Amino acid sequence: MALTAPLHGVIPPVCTPLDPHGEVDTASLTRLVGRLLDAGVHGLFALGSTGEATYLTNHQRATVLETVVTATAGRVPVLAGVIDTTTARVLEHARTAVALGADALVATAPFYARTHPREIAAHFRHLRTATGRPLIAYDIPVSVHSKLSPALIRELAEDGTLAGLKDSSGDDGTLRRLLVALGGRTARRTGPAPAFAVLSGSELTADAALLAGADGVVPGLGNIDPTGYVRLYDAARAGDWPRATAEQERLVRLFDLTDTGPEDEMGRGSSALGGFKAALRLLGWIACRDTAMPQLPLSEESVAEVGRRLTEAGLLPAP
Amino acid sequence: MALTAPLHGVIPPVCTPLDPHGEVDTASLTRLVGRLLDAGVHGLFALGSTGEATYLTNHQRATVLETVVTATAGRVPVLAGVIDTTTARVLEHARTAVALGADALVATAPFYARTHPREIAAHFRHLRTATGRPLIAYDIPVSVHSKLSPALIRELAEDGTLAGLKDSSGDDGTLRRLLVALGGRTARRTGPAPAFAVLSGSELTADAALLAGADGVVPGLGNIDPTGYVRLYDAARAGDWPRATAEQERLVRLFDLTDTGPEDEMGRGSSALGGFKAALRLLGWIACRDTAMPQLPLSEESVAEVGRRLTEAGLLPAP
Amino acid sequence: MALTAPLHGVIPPVCTPLDPHGEVDTASLTRLVGRLLDAGVHGLFALGSTGEATYLTNHQRATVLETVVTATAGRVPVLAGVIDTTTARVLEHARTAVALGADALVATAPFYARTHPREIAAHFRHLRTATGRPLIAYDIPVSVHSKLSPALIRELAEDGTLAGLKDSSGDDGTLRRLLVALGGRTARRTGPAPAFAVLSGSELTADAALLAGADGVVPGLGNIDPTGYVRLYDAARAGDWPRATAEQERLVRLFDLTDTGPEDEMGRGSSALGGFKAALRLLGWIACRDTAMPQLPLSEESVAEVGRRLTEAGLLPAP
Amino acid sequence: MALTAPLHGVIPPVCTPLDPHGEVDTASLTRLVGRLLDAGVHGLFALGSTGEATYLTNHQRATVLETVVTATAGRVPVLAGVIDTTTARVLEHARTAVALGADALVATAPFYARTHPREIAAHFRHLRTATGRPLIAYDIPVSVHSKLSPALIRELAEDGTLAGLKDSSGDDGTLRRLLVALGGRTARRTGPAPAFAVLSGSELTADAALLAGADGVVPGLGNIDPTGYVRLYDAARAGDWPRATAEQERLVRLFDLTDTGPEDEMGRGSSALGGFKAALRLLGWIACRDTAMPQLPLSEESVAEVGRRLTEAGLLPAP
Repeated sequence: MALTAPLHGVIPPVCTPLDPHGEVDTASLTRLVGRLLDAGVHGLFALGSTGEATYLTNHQRATVLETVVTATAGRVPVLAGVIDTTTARVLEHARTAVALGADALVATAPFYARTHPREIAAHFRHLRTATGRPLIAYDIPVSVHSKLSPALIRELAEDGTLAGLKDSSGDDGTLRRLLVALGGRTARRTGPAPAFAVLSGSELTADAALLAGADGVVPGLGNIDPTGYVRLYDAARAGDWPRATAEQERLVRLFDLTDTGPEDEMGRGSSALGGFKAALRLLGWIACRDTAMPQLPLSEESVAEVGRRLTEAGLLPAP
Repeated sequence: MALTAPLHGVIPPVCTPLDPHGEVDTASLTRLVGRLLDAGVHGLFALGSTGEATYLTNHQRATVLETVVTATAGRVPVLAGVIDTTTARVLEHARTAVALGADALVATAPFYARTHPREIAAHFRHLRTATGRPLIAYDIPVSVHSKLSPALIRELAEDGTLAGLKDSSGDDGTLRRLLVALGGRTARRTGPAPAFAVLSGSELTADAALLAGADGVVPGLGNIDPTGYVRLYDAARAGDWPRATAEQERLVRLFDLTDTGPEDEMGRGSSALGGFKAALRLLGWIACRDTAMPQLPLSEESVAEVGRRLTEAGLLPAP
Repeated sequence: MALTAPLHGVIPPVCTPLDPHGEVDTASLTRLVGRLLDAGVHGLFALGSTGEATYLTNHQRATVLETVVTATAGRVPVLAGVIDTTTARVLEHARTAVALGADALVATAPFYARTHPREIAAHFRHLRTATGRPLIAYDIPVSVHSKLSPALIRELAEDGTLAGLKDSSGDDGTLRRLLVALGGRTARRTGPAPAFAVLSGSELTADAALLAGADGVVPGLGNIDPTGYVRLYDAARAGDWPRATAEQERLVRLFDLTDTGPEDEMGRGSSALGGFKAALRLLGWIACRDTAMPQLPLSEESVAEVGRRLTEAGLLPAP
Repeated sequence: MALTAPLHGVIPPVCTPLDPHGEVDTASLTRLVGRLLDAGVHGLFALGSTGEATYLTNHQRATVLETVVTATAGRVPVLAGVIDTTTARVLEHARTAVALGADALVATAPFYARTHPREIAAHFRHLRTATGRPLIAYDIPVSVHSKLSPALIRELAEDGTLAGLKDSSGDDGTLRRLLVALGGRTARRTGPAPAFAVLSGSELTADAALLAGADGVVPGLGNIDPTGYVRLYDAARAGDWPRATAEQERLVRLFDLTDTGPEDEMGRGSSALGGFKAALRLLGWIACRDTAMPQLPLSEESVAEVGRRLTEAGLLPAP
């Protein structure tokens, strides 16, 4: 679909189900997309960090995007992550994503290579010029090891390079300064729809981001409880902050399912992605909870803990 | 005063006015405390990072605390920062603070020395035992270079070591997890006053922190516009989030006064503290805008910019 | 060629000449390889960080490796970098490299993704099993943002996973501990050739690394002055430390050519790689000094400064 | 003593023995100083990081320095650490140190506070002007969290602010660039004694530092085996690199005594300082192996491991 309205709402970064051979399980992915759309999400972000994009080969990435675009069938915009180290490599992903029908592209600053802000700006400008699709900057310092400054974001928003920001920096204070510089909550909520979309990647402060005027949220946990985030978003849009906050607190508790893997045995990434996939498996939405190499699998004990979190959150009956 | 109620509300980290010889200007400090109290703040935090505590000699620190305690005259609780590298040194500051009448002590984890979480726990436990005063943990990774984990905070809250947390980590997601683990907003707002106080150090997301159930805020910018933060707090307590947010957005714009010093010429600390003091000088609350060595002073051009921010925020008439 | 002897000596990480369209200039690359071999280097490392591997598409990487292997014609071992975010992606590069005739593979720990040491170990083990070629671990925390611990390296050396280490950590103390744990200089120099090769990536402390018992060096600056590093290596092997040190000091001065780009205008990577390529262009070894997007080019003024460094080092006549 | 010759040689950062009440054990400290002087060290550095300076109160620090100065009785120069957060606080320590007879002062950049290089320069200049004693910059990023750039060091060396550098950055490549910029090994060893002393803090690469032209070494492990480091230094001065390296390798193995405390139970600082003190206790040089609060003590098992390292290094007979 063409991106006829600015991005907003709940846009889950879609998990990538794998089969026991490590290949993309397109049937499970199609089913997951269906569940998310049924829950009323406003967009889908394929091939993000939660989607294990950097663990997938180029061929696997294309399979994922094609599956998501097909399953979505134009009902909501599909954003495609084009995550790679530098411009030429990102551009290859971007061209594939355009060919497969992505409505917008989501790119980080270069990584591995160490780049200057002026080089980061050149990177985004080149991507925008070469693809012609709306471009979203993905700020995720925990992975990229540099932070996109508000000054840079504003410059690239004002000259039309960027159509939006996905903020996964966890730095809500800096995000607030950007939102205020872009007009602030009142201007963004009462004027014409803003041309530049601000999306928060935080599962834990979605209510606060919306209170601050963010247009949408991109929560990994939205794979597991899309209905909860849609309720949170609707309450926030209606100005019902007690309800939004109550929903957020339930989701914060549910987020504990990302922490069941022991810290001395596996990475926090494996624990979180393993937790998401174990939950999706327990919900019956995907067939297999495997994560991509070299991530280690959760133990059965950890999976049982994930199940208890789902039950506490009301997503699974008590066993 | 004895700390008869849990800490809450607006608790500015009081700036330390200096004279042109670098000594504490007690007259200005007394006046500043008076202005803050007149504005209705709920507590005062002397000798925090904003108070340039780590730039002051032990003698100067004592002068500051004595002045603040005297000027406050028991109207609100006075929290005293006891910031130093390790236990024995912090303990010296703590004993002085107790002798001078501080109602609570605010201590960081050890710094310079690299310590294990078990050693950080031992540090806080020793401080608590040796002083007998309510102890607030000060989480400020940008200065201390380690982060207090929610698990550690909860352990020390539950065993009575800590009476509260001042969170200056900027990590609002982790703070949210802690708040939810402590019962969440509804429980904290509707039940009996919580025994463990959660205070946010963010100038920029105070509304979000209060929405999440924080008990109070400790904004450096509260030196300049205490009335604004009190209005924000009152609106939040009344559940009037549009008003709280509008106030917050005005304060976010005012916060630009911390950025007038050029990045290639001075540290961000000098720019921020210099901006605070230039503003206090322009408001007529302190006599001299000097900051402590080796911080560099703001240029006249930067000070003029600070003045424009005050005017825009309605705190100073147009020149 | 089969890797019949353990890796040792001077093994430059070969620069990748580009044409003005950003494509690999195979003629220049062939010429550069010839110059390096003429200078007596003991191996070549294609597709390392100095080779801008993370700036090149998969197709361009294959072109580079094919060109280097062909130009080398088996005279020295060719090591191929297989740098990418995670196991499946690295494995694709590795299979291509094996097909193109690489004698050994050089892989980093996963990046972007955050992995646990146990996952890093699984990553290397999987690569080793799947390719059957000697595998060199590439420790470059400035890019990968994690450090390979000596304990992990030893474990993977002892079980046969790793054939060597390329240490670009800059942490010579930790490298020394590893070398001593592997037997120390005397054992390594007087006993049978060690099965596990330790290669230092430092341009600046090559003499010290060889004094400590390293088997070889992989200096980016070795593209510009391969003869100098070969002289340094020969002096070190002969135990002539005054000569080795004098050579090293000349090379340290020459290394200033990596710093001609202004810090407030471009990244340190662009300045260093731009300096290497400007020098190769001035030496007449490559046709064009362009670096890959989004790196910014050196100014003419910076290039002139590079020329002066070459003249001072005796590599170019005075203009 | 007046500092009549440039600093050079082996200058151990003296450990601070404590009694079971956490007070300075002056008898043990006097005995330790005696052992170090008997071993032929060329200077003593009191109140460094190894001396637990940041764990000691001002009063305790004065006791330490007074004891070291008295025990040294002018036989070698005594350097005094004046480590604290900012200028005014450092200046207090500096004045005490001058009054107690320190021959030179060793100061870090400000910490906790975040300062700009121009502010760091102002800090050192103010200290130099106010004290009139030779000032050594202490570069220890692991504690101070900023690195002194070679450009800054050179500027402050050339204008007479600094008399030397103690480099504990672990960044031997950058140190090498500084040494070459200061004239290089040959110039430093064959010309007049250099006015600016470069001292390496590394236990593990002392031979390499001396090969590169450093004037001296400041190894914490020099408390345990001062004779070994003096032998290493003498061999290096004599150009006998095989002997220097063999000595270094023995000391690298001995350094394993810093790692006996389990990583999941205590900080690396506690393990290292606890290991040093356990070794000194086993050697019979100090009475008690306690470290300062909040550091955790080594277990008996760890102490036994320390003993085995001493035996292996030939410092203790087999039990």
